[in-house]
Amino acid sequence: MGATVRPVVPSSWGHFHPGTGFDRWLLRKVAARIGPAALRLTVGENSVDASDLPPVATVRFCDRRTLLALAPNPHRRFGDEYANGRIEVEGDLLFALETAYRARRHVGRAGPLARVLTLLPHWPGLDRRNIHRHYDLGNSFYRQWLDERMVYTCAYFDSPDASLEHAQVAKMELVCRKLGLRPGESVVEVGCGWGALALHMAREHGVHVRAFNVSHEQVRYAREQARMQGLQDRVRFLEADYRRATGTADAFVSVGMLEHVGKASYGELARVIARTLDPRTGRGLVHFIGRDVPRPLDPWIRRRIFPGAYAPTLDEACRGVLAPAGMSVIDVENLRAHYAKTLREWRERFERAVEEGRVGFDEPFRRAWRLYLAGSEAAFLTGSLQLFQVLFAPAGARTTPWTRATWYHDHERGPACSVPTS
Amino acid sequence: MGATVRPVVPSSWGHFHPGTGFDRWLLRKVAARIGPAALRLTVGENSVDASDLPPVATVRFCDRRTLLALAPNPHRRFGDEYANGRIEVEGDLLFALETAYRARRHVGRAGPLARVLTLLPHWPGLDRRNIHRHYDLGNSFYRQWLDERMVYTCAYFDSPDASLEHAQVAKMELVCRKLGLRPGESVVEVGCGWGALALHMAREHGVHVRAFNVSHEQVRYAREQARMQGLQDRVRFLEADYRRATGTADAFVSVGMLEHVGKASYGELARVIARTLDPRTGRGLVHFIGRDVPRPLDPWIRRRIFPGAYAPTLDEACRGVLAPAGMSVIDVENLRAHYAKTLREWRERFERAVEEGRVGFDEPFRRAWRLYLAGSEAAFLTGSLQLFQVLFAPAGARTTPWTRATWYHDHERGPACSVPTS
Repeated sequence: MGATVRPVVPSSWGHFHPGTGFDRWLLRKVAARIGPAALRLTVGENSVDASDLPPVATVRFCDRRTLLALAPNPHRRFGDEYANGRIEVEGDLLFALETAYRARRHVGRAGPLARVLTLLPHWPGLDRRNIHRHYDLGNSFYRQWLDERMVYTCAYFDSPDASLEHAQVAKMELVCRKLGLRPGESVVEVGCGWGALALHMAREHGVHVRAFNVSHEQVRYAREQARMQGLQDRVRFLEADYRRATGTADAFVSVGMLEHVGKASYGELARVIARTLDPRTGRGLVHFIGRDVPRPLDPWIRRRIFPGAYAPTLDEACRGVLAPAGMSVIDVENLRAHYAKTLREWRERFERAVEEGRVGFDEPFRRAWRLYLAGSEAAFLTGSLQLFQVLFAPAGARTTPWTRATWYHDHERGPACSVPTS
Repeated sequence: MGATVRPVVPSSWGHFHPGTGFDRWLLRKVAARIGPAALRLTVGENSVDASDLPPVATVRFCDRRTLLALAPNPHRRFGDEYANGRIEVEGDLLFALETAYRARRHVGRAGPLARVLTLLPHWPGLDRRNIHRHYDLGNSFYRQWLDERMVYTCAYFDSPDASLEHAQVAKMELVCRKLGLRPGESVVEVGCGWGALALHMAREHGVHVRAFNVSHEQVRYAREQARMQGLQDRVRFLEADYRRATGTADAFVSVGMLEHVGKASYGELARVIARTLDPRTGRGLVHFIGRDVPRPLDPWIRRRIFPGAYAPTLDEACRGVLAPAGMSVIDVENLRAHYAKTLREWRERFERAVEEGRVGFDEPFRRAWRLYLAGSEAAFLTGSLQLFQVLFAPAGARTTPWTRATWYHDHERGPACSVPTS
């Protein structure tokens, strides 16, 4: 955080000096598009405050060219210019992003073009390429800052001072309890990451899992883990698209994949769920990053971090996936605050790894990753993003629990916080 | 249940005797429209089974005229003909309705006209008239079969063998815990029924409540209760429409009213919520009968029992009310099974009151009420209806609890099941 990076490309515009009036005009232009954030914008000797609030941070543009590039659409360009070191944030990066997110609420909704983008079709090859770009950056990179089980989704801090390691196990355990898994049952998991949840379900709840993922690196790692833990008979990791999930199961689970499915393919996911679950005894859970109102992801995130991703509203997930699959919503939990805390933990570990020289890649990559982690934390803190965990069951099924009380205190297992550790 | 009622109007068609072939053809026609239910349909000596399943009950039509009246649309006419005693159900009424509801899933969606009906505008005068027709049947009538606090919404049976009295208090307590009420806070309640929740919140949680209702009978009763319990300084019951709720509050709550608002007026409710809640500290809860897919209520229920009512899907409530109000969904609990149990309790009490001659009205009214209670229970059991309890907060507010665990086990208050009783 706050690493000082000198401008990569010195501005050729610097020689023109058309006067500070122009710079101030440009700064005001950018400020107006950012909205009433508690930020000071600075280029050279000129500063403009974006609101009447005392600034929590200063955003310094290395030169007028950068400022000009940003003026038409600061949200679209900020990420690249920050990553390239042409913009520096002086002060706490998180606070700066948080106030920017809060201000953004006042500058209106996404334009029609941005909304049309969310409707573009996804096909298996595109999904595979999109997933490859983010998740195949190398397992050794992710190992530097994820927990020991390599869980790359929102954790569940059953107490505010729980460790990330504990919180990831607590999340997996909460998912299992919501699903009411019993030994001998079968589970289909789509989008299984490095396999931690599939392995947890098999090891702690005695179920048989078929887990799907298109990331080659992740599947390779997950299979190795299954062998090491002696679970290869109970967990099958398939390097295949969710559309290829066949057969029936007692439970269906998907943690952190819906964001990658794309709205145009929700019907395909609905058909997979419908054909997987028994109408009388089935139940399922989807866990996804969502929104209060339909809006594409930040353009920089969509371009550089998660190509093709879209965070749906709860109602888009209900209308697009669960209702067409013939499912009733049984329970929804918004874990937004837990995702903010998870991202904080990841970012602290990432910064430690950077300091100790354990993260490869070049400085622009590291700055981009820092911005992605801090920006996501700010988005969850401000409610720009939500994290919905949705339990569902076929309409009319009677398999759902009478109350939720046992999820939080189970006399056989003890309180939910005493999660098993392996 | 199963009271035998002779045909009110003997059929003048009985004399024609155009042959049993015609009766059987009509029975098959009705059976086809009911779908594959485990029912035997009978008129005179003729019977037809609606499916290959062993019948759980026999539906006896008193004459051919009744059968003819039902043939074009059995779901539309059944209620009136049953209430008038021209149709009798031999066997368990609940089982008969349950199998009919399950079969209905196979006979397609509501027609376009029925769907257009759900979009008709509501205005305060219409709402008042609709509410009057159901809720002003006389407090003495409802007292015969509701719990002692006159709570006419889904209870929460924290243990399956809890009494209705206990379960209604547990429901109110669960609502208060979800809202995290603290002494001295203010609450706006819209659609307050006979006032039990408003009084509970004030008495057990020390909050100040303004509670709105357009039912004259209910408000009169609620005010009397407030006086008797010495709570008139903390609870104000206003005989006014939800649209007239002004001022701000720490919490907003509405239990069992959204069904009466009408889709066309969701925006008005959204504006009330938005202007009531503080953007940083507010939180709210709506509790309503819902659906998995958009569909009007049963036509008989809409005509005879709840005029103007509509049970929205979760996504209609999110898109229509919560998102426009600027709210994030924090938590959704589907209490469908609890509503089935609540209705079962009400129906048992109702039948006892009928037997003991404590229910007035004529026999068609009592039969209609029996059908309404049993039909609703069947609808919740089969997943044709859902009960959603939705906790929400202004987007970006940080007032929501870290986990739900304290709702189920609070060290200060003890387990949620040890609800206060007064």
